[in-house]
Amino acid sequence: MVFAGAGLDRASVGRRDPSWLAARRAQPDARSLVLSDAGIWVENGRLLLVEPDGESVFLGLDGQRPLFAADVTGEPGRGRPAGLREAASELPAAEAALGAYAASLLSWHRRHRYCANCGSPTEPRDGGHQRDCPSCGASHFPRTDPVVIVRVIDAADRLLLGRQARWPPGRFSVLAGFVEPGETLEEAVVREVLEESGVEVGEVDYVASQPWPFPSSLMIGFTARAVGGEPRPGDDELSEVRWFERSEVEAAARGTGAVALSPPYSISRQLIDGWLATPAAPDRPRRSS
Amino acid sequence: MVFAGAGLDRASVGRRDPSWLAARRAQPDARSLVLSDAGIWVENGRLLLVEPDGESVFLGLDGQRPLFAADVTGEPGRGRPAGLREAASELPAAEAALGAYAASLLSWHRRHRYCANCGSPTEPRDGGHQRDCPSCGASHFPRTDPVVIVRVIDAADRLLLGRQARWPPGRFSVLAGFVEPGETLEEAVVREVLEESGVEVGEVDYVASQPWPFPSSLMIGFTARAVGGEPRPGDDELSEVRWFERSEVEAAARGTGAVALSPPYSISRQLIDGWLATPAAPDRPRRSS
Repeated sequence: MVFAGAGLDRASVGRRDPSWLAARRAQPDARSLVLSDAGIWVENGRLLLVEPDGESVFLGLDGQRPLFAADVTGEPGRGRPAGLREAASELPAAEAALGAYAASLLSWHRRHRYCANCGSPTEPRDGGHQRDCPSCGASHFPRTDPVVIVRVIDAADRLLLGRQARWPPGRFSVLAGFVEPGETLEEAVVREVLEESGVEVGEVDYVASQPWPFPSSLMIGFTARAVGGEPRPGDDELSEVRWFERSEVEAAARGTGAVALSPPYSISRQLIDGWLATPAAPDRPRRSS
Repeated sequence: MVFAGAGLDRASVGRRDPSWLAARRAQPDARSLVLSDAGIWVENGRLLLVEPDGESVFLGLDGQRPLFAADVTGEPGRGRPAGLREAASELPAAEAALGAYAASLLSWHRRHRYCANCGSPTEPRDGGHQRDCPSCGASHFPRTDPVVIVRVIDAADRLLLGRQARWPPGRFSVLAGFVEPGETLEEAVVREVLEESGVEVGEVDYVASQPWPFPSSLMIGFTARAVGGEPRPGDDELSEVRWFERSEVEAAARGTGAVALSPPYSISRQLIDGWLATPAAPDRPRRSS
């Protein structure tokens, strides 16, 4: 799963100690990822790594080697910036994961320089995994927004896909939405599918999860069985939503036909590929359409 | 599952429209939950419901009846405040769920009156499900913090429980911790168990989830199989962590013995009770200790 498995020791106890952290920063083999508004910096198909400066946030220990990440303004003088989606396709998986983790953490710092409780400027703590307010004393932590993403299958072995108006033509995906306060993941699945498509789902089963650094989501994947309702765009989210026959999705997965699916590294695509790899259940025969 | 299943129509499309929302607020049957620093207000074992005022946040439609929630300063003149844990024991489950949802949402408003991006005061939007900054234009949304909580079982059919020093004497729970940026739920499970106890886990399987309004967590429950390591408190989180024989946990669940478990409405307890209800796997015989 790309964007996951950075495989670092995050050293969450050690990083709380400023002197431990200063020693890691001073280690000759310590390195820092480089990010900017333009993306994450790469060089020759690998992450660009430079010496950490005093502002860099601590990512963790890769074996014994401390890894940091920092925003630069301007150009670091080497390499080139890549978007995270581009990085996901080009970099080795572990480096794409590191980049995603760094991008999430730095994006949080960029947008959380002030105290939401009192409006005062805040200061980084805990190697960049916390920001404290010297004025009111509040502590703030990076946010991770849980999103449910769901493969909905009906009794005729069809897959529910929708598209947003702003997507490239022909692009469809499984449905997804943010978890709201006070609901379980399963309740969020039922609510989101109903809101976006008018389809009611029954059984809801967990499949897998994937960090999604745009900017700080955690995609939590489910499969669900439709029990009623006919698809129609139900809120402002989707411009089109309908059932797809297995043959149509197979063609899309092969890259033929008018329909395009999410990229291979996305959990959306993995939910779809997982369905394609599983024959229709015997009590739910495949339609001969 | 208590704190879940409020069963409302959250009307996430309608609530974006101020005129729709004003009409709901003016409905004669509209009601508002009452919260204060002291907790959620109850009366005769039910939620205290009053007429909504202009400051109340929109929770959703209970059938046709619009439900809101508001903070009061001082006393509403009726009922009494209950802590959320107390409410979970005393109220009907659906009302405890409503109270938890309201508490999460209002707690977010209390602590997010200023823009984290620029420090200016923000204004509520979308019936209280968003706060916008008139100065820099940033939009802010309620946060839901994903927490993994995990039942770890070893090959000898023992359960891993830990306790925090600040808990009442004898109280133990399964291990839990916040998901960090850039990791999957399964990676968070492996990391948290290793950090807190030194125990390595292999197979990790999803069980269930529960909103946990203290103040805005979403507990995501897993079961995991230990594959190595001997328990010892590994970070500052736990003061004690060890293996428990099934007989010891059975006694604790009955309320006998020196060990106390989490309250019945918690997912911690449900993970434990689920294990107690399942006989030891045949290839992992129960110890005769």
